[in-house]
Amino acid sequence: MAGPTPTAPQSYLQIIEACDNFRLPVASDLKAERLVPWRLSPDFNAPAIGLLRPEIIEKLRLENVRRPQVPAWDIREGAVSFAGFLRTAAERTHIMNEMCMRWRDEGLFPNIIGPKKWRGEMYPVYRNPFGKHDAPTQEEWEDNRNYAFMMERAACALFGVVTYGVHLTIYEDDVERNSCRIWVPTRSRTKPTWPGYLDNSVAGGIPSGLGAFESLVKEAMEEASIGEDAVKEHAKQAGSVTYFFRTDAGWLQPEVQYIYDMRVPPGADPEAFRPKPLDGEVESFELLPLSEVINRMRVGLFKRNCALVLVDFMVRHGHLTAENEADYLEIVSRLHGRFEYERW
Amino acid sequence: MAGPTPTAPQSYLQIIEACDNFRLPVASDLKAERLVPWRLSPDFNAPAIGLLRPEIIEKLRLENVRRPQVPAWDIREGAVSFAGFLRTAAERTHIMNEMCMRWRDEGLFPNIIGPKKWRGEMYPVYRNPFGKHDAPTQEEWEDNRNYAFMMERAACALFGVVTYGVHLTIYEDDVERNSCRIWVPTRSRTKPTWPGYLDNSVAGGIPSGLGAFESLVKEAMEEASIGEDAVKEHAKQAGSVTYFFRTDAGWLQPEVQYIYDMRVPPGADPEAFRPKPLDGEVESFELLPLSEVINRMRVGLFKRNCALVLVDFMVRHGHLTAENEADYLEIVSRLHGRFEYERW
Repeated sequence: MAGPTPTAPQSYLQIIEACDNFRLPVASDLKAERLVPWRLSPDFNAPAIGLLRPEIIEKLRLENVRRPQVPAWDIREGAVSFAGFLRTAAERTHIMNEMCMRWRDEGLFPNIIGPKKWRGEMYPVYRNPFGKHDAPTQEEWEDNRNYAFMMERAACALFGVVTYGVHLTIYEDDVERNSCRIWVPTRSRTKPTWPGYLDNSVAGGIPSGLGAFESLVKEAMEEASIGEDAVKEHAKQAGSVTYFFRTDAGWLQPEVQYIYDMRVPPGADPEAFRPKPLDGEVESFELLPLSEVINRMRVGLFKRNCALVLVDFMVRHGHLTAENEADYLEIVSRLHGRFEYERW
Repeated sequence: MAGPTPTAPQSYLQIIEACDNFRLPVASDLKAERLVPWRLSPDFNAPAIGLLRPEIIEKLRLENVRRPQVPAWDIREGAVSFAGFLRTAAERTHIMNEMCMRWRDEGLFPNIIGPKKWRGEMYPVYRNPFGKHDAPTQEEWEDNRNYAFMMERAACALFGVVTYGVHLTIYEDDVERNSCRIWVPTRSRTKPTWPGYLDNSVAGGIPSGLGAFESLVKEAMEEASIGEDAVKEHAKQAGSVTYFFRTDAGWLQPEVQYIYDMRVPPGADPEAFRPKPLDGEVESFELLPLSEVINRMRVGLFKRNCALVLVDFMVRHGHLTAENEADYLEIVSRLHGRFEYERW
């Protein structure tokens, strides 16, 4: 059965560096792979919404060769964008969708968008990844909005586009130990990504058109059988965590996670808050003391970004401090990094 | 009596931008004031520990003219550092201290280090501002340590050196309103900085040799008459907040604040947790509903960095959410910025 192999124990900073493992190369770094900003339009001032590897740019060139009368891509030295005539969200979405499906059907990048990797979920792309997450509308002219277009979830990594998710930690206080216990799921062994790894109590991506809290409500039911009323009454937003992950194969996955806590109220019936698998994405749930969560996190049994969410939980709840963790400031800062696309 | 004048209501992002109001200029920004990194040693790979304005570099040139046999400063195009022979923390501290006191006595920069601004407190300077905060020792050779030297608190702004503090929010739950009440001090009208402004429940700088939590214990007694036992039992670390503040006069004050919460336990005698002025830095304390804290914060009555700490409190406790605040991600990210000295 697929699953993680324990590593040697890592420090908290190493845990973060295993996930937030990429920085935009500085211009002077000649050895770095030549990554090119993907802009929304050929205007040099248009925001960069992604980052392209040479092999993707090569494919985009071929796209233009395929349709020389109406090339969809503006490809210049050091900048790639949609062609200037693609000015609405609907037009950009259409071009991307048609192309990504065709690449999938032609067998390109099978490890990223092959049939087993394809999600069939559309993800939003924003001009400013930290800006307002306005929803798609039917407006044709949308230049004053942050929402730019949407695209297949699995393909986002090919283009270095920022994706968004929600992560919830369900916990109960352990007053005796001045600590807590956390509900920890094991991911299904048949999941296409990170099979058998440990996860946050509830976690999932935010598809186009759904708000963060709406996504949380949906995922809480689908993954953990937790009803909307319980989430609305007890889940509290507690910040966001961001990291720039580059896969071993070199694909870029900058991610923003909205963070929520759900504390089982003291005296409540624990059964009422016990998460149970529903949709097959989770194999089982365990209620683990924080100390055991830490043990498993340090040997690499958690999905990497979920470990970051747990480190953030430990920071916010005073389990990590300036006194017990030498890398405290670096850790807190790294949990909230920027992608710096705006510099490009 | 000195004190703040209410402004028009600001958004949360504007509140943050009023404090985190500086970014290192990019090389291509020709209109930006020419700021030069201050490195610990002439080695180009030595870390930048500050940022120097042209008028400071001019004064450092005069220092070398004063002592041409043993110039203390290595001044080159685009980089300034201690001279290469100044290799220990004790030597650097001595040079800085003698110079800053002399500048004060000569009447230089009176608004920053004049007799009324001088603090008489030594602040630590670290090679890596987010690195381990090891304490000064008597070792002569300290190249493997993060601690670099110490210098007068008031002078840090002249050199753009990062300073550190602790900020504590004392609050009690307001279960009925699903909200809370916060203890808010008014700063003494005679304070040299921000007289009459509102502040965090307890706040202060971290002098050289004291740890973060030790500083909190000290400040809690001095400013709010709260005993060590109460702080140790009820104050919990909850993260850090960083911002790069540039004063109206152009001085650079990058700051890191260690953040603590102290929740008055439900059912506790409120009198036992009531802060009371002790050392004259605080005029009075009020227990304000969060809604009133927000009102006063939005019209600029809080010291700017204390408003940031309150925004961080609101984020961590779920009062600000992705649903009720369009700038949510930008706000959370900006509360944890980096100074990027490492890029220079």
